[in-house]
Amino acid sequence: MNSFEDLSNQFSKYFNVRHFPTEPASLYDADEYFLNLGGKRVRPVMCLMGNELFDDINPDAWPVAAAIELFHNFTLIHDDIMDKAPLRRNQPTVHAKYGESTALLSGDVMLIVAYDYLNKVSTGYLHQVIRLFNRTAKEVCEGQQLDMDFEKQETVQLDEYIRMIELKTSVLLAASLQLGAVLGGAGQANQEHIYDFGRNLGIAFQIQDDYLDAYGDPAKFGKQPGGDIMANKKTFLMIKALESANAAQLKELKRLMQENPEDKVARVLSVFDDCGVNKWAANLKEKYIAEAFEHLEEMAVVSVRKEPLRELAHFLVQREH
Amino acid sequence: MNSFEDLSNQFSKYFNVRHFPTEPASLYDADEYFLNLGGKRVRPVMCLMGNELFDDINPDAWPVAAAIELFHNFTLIHDDIMDKAPLRRNQPTVHAKYGESTALLSGDVMLIVAYDYLNKVSTGYLHQVIRLFNRTAKEVCEGQQLDMDFEKQETVQLDEYIRMIELKTSVLLAASLQLGAVLGGAGQANQEHIYDFGRNLGIAFQIQDDYLDAYGDPAKFGKQPGGDIMANKKTFLMIKALESANAAQLKELKRLMQENPEDKVARVLSVFDDCGVNKWAANLKEKYIAEAFEHLEEMAVVSVRKEPLRELAHFLVQREH
Repeated sequence: MNSFEDLSNQFSKYFNVRHFPTEPASLYDADEYFLNLGGKRVRPVMCLMGNELFDDINPDAWPVAAAIELFHNFTLIHDDIMDKAPLRRNQPTVHAKYGESTALLSGDVMLIVAYDYLNKVSTGYLHQVIRLFNRTAKEVCEGQQLDMDFEKQETVQLDEYIRMIELKTSVLLAASLQLGAVLGGAGQANQEHIYDFGRNLGIAFQIQDDYLDAYGDPAKFGKQPGGDIMANKKTFLMIKALESANAAQLKELKRLMQENPEDKVARVLSVFDDCGVNKWAANLKEKYIAEAFEHLEEMAVVSVRKEPLRELAHFLVQREH
Repeated sequence: MNSFEDLSNQFSKYFNVRHFPTEPASLYDADEYFLNLGGKRVRPVMCLMGNELFDDINPDAWPVAAAIELFHNFTLIHDDIMDKAPLRRNQPTVHAKYGESTALLSGDVMLIVAYDYLNKVSTGYLHQVIRLFNRTAKEVCEGQQLDMDFEKQETVQLDEYIRMIELKTSVLLAASLQLGAVLGGAGQANQEHIYDFGRNLGIAFQIQDDYLDAYGDPAKFGKQPGGDIMANKKTFLMIKALESANAAQLKELKRLMQENPEDKVARVLSVFDDCGVNKWAANLKEKYIAEAFEHLEEMAVVSVRKEPLRELAHFLVQREH
């Protein structure tokens, strides 16, 4: 059994190679640049963990883990274009550095190379792996589209927002675990449990992300909190606040969002506190974590094999940065 | 044996269904809109022809043909974004109608759905099909990148231009035929011949395309010729003219490209004629067609089975519109 850290180190060794041809450099340099920005490689490690939950690591799990990481980076390159984001991991985004057209193409090519890695899976599981990977890939695109749609809507319902988060963030975490499980020979019931463990964990992770952006300790969070509030982003906290505010609080929130005063963050947070949104978010996160752990416990696997996944859950959802 | 027209009709029946979920409509309507603009579906029919050259049609050839057509449409959606093209098939492009972000995502999703279709191939050929499809898909992206690179270069060498055309246009025609051949159980030598038949035909097709844009009969061509000349596009004709012009002709060409006078098209054509570029292009096209036919003849297949491919070649490269 490997810990999260062991698997992370082993995956880095496998993954930190050149994945693209050298020519035309005007295209492939952009791909290599972006991959070299690094990242925590959480998803591929989850694939390896999902695999090791059921058996020793199947050699096919490495290319599938790489395909997942390439897919994730493909979505980041394209999302950054759509969001007109100048920075990613404190470095220029691909479109900022190489132009939008090259960013678009380098993302396309990264998705294609992800399928090169999937195609390394030996025949028995290949169909099943591509089927789950593709369903998830489409869902992630749907989540991004809904996120963009919501930006243009005046109000978003909480259940719509949760569904968007599920698609945009959770399903890839869930599918990473399940893809590993498939390659570990897991049965249908165990596959569903590990998927739902990841899905619930992903939602808890996003609740925490929204929470930290509002309430995080700048020293641990690494950046000034309040970015989402400044940008009027619809987050778990804001959607709940708009839903539960009384008339006066609602008026205050809407005025703050429109007028952007200097003390906007502090005043929005004060409304959040008055509405009990911070406590509500902490409870909601706990609810999803509890549900995740229930699925973990229900898996018909010896308990000791579940230890790294418990570690992962704590790593993901109890961090303060 | 089916004719081009038979296969085209059969493929239309197979392909003219909904390929995408209905929700979120804000994403998938864009995909359905674009597919409904139609097109000649040449590439999937080439896949079916490549298949029938060796055997009765393998049921797996239908989804592979669909994957090829979806891939082709994915490239068109993304190319139109990069080229800022307002129209495609006389209708608004996806980004013109739905915005750039949705166009980007709807292209991404179309590529993913192409792999859903590939994944319908039964196990025996799946790895080989994905390997060839992916190599080709990357090459098409490389071709698009080179095309954009060339736009920024002052001069482009003829051999560089041919390589770009090969990547951007020819390899997908070639691979469509070869994918069909793979599913028909063709051996390696025959696979290479049918690929090279398609590759050479593709270059001949592009030479003709460039030629018709300059010299086409407007009544048959469907639009006023001279578009490439007006836009200073580097085409077979222009690259050759710049290469073979004498000092006075070169000066005239460069002035025309810079000053864009009203009679630009006629005057550029007159330089083309003086340099013998029209005749050169006709000869070059014949050279590639001859090479294509050599590969066709060398295939170890009864001659009558080659008839539809001869038809196809004539359809592609002797058209006047």
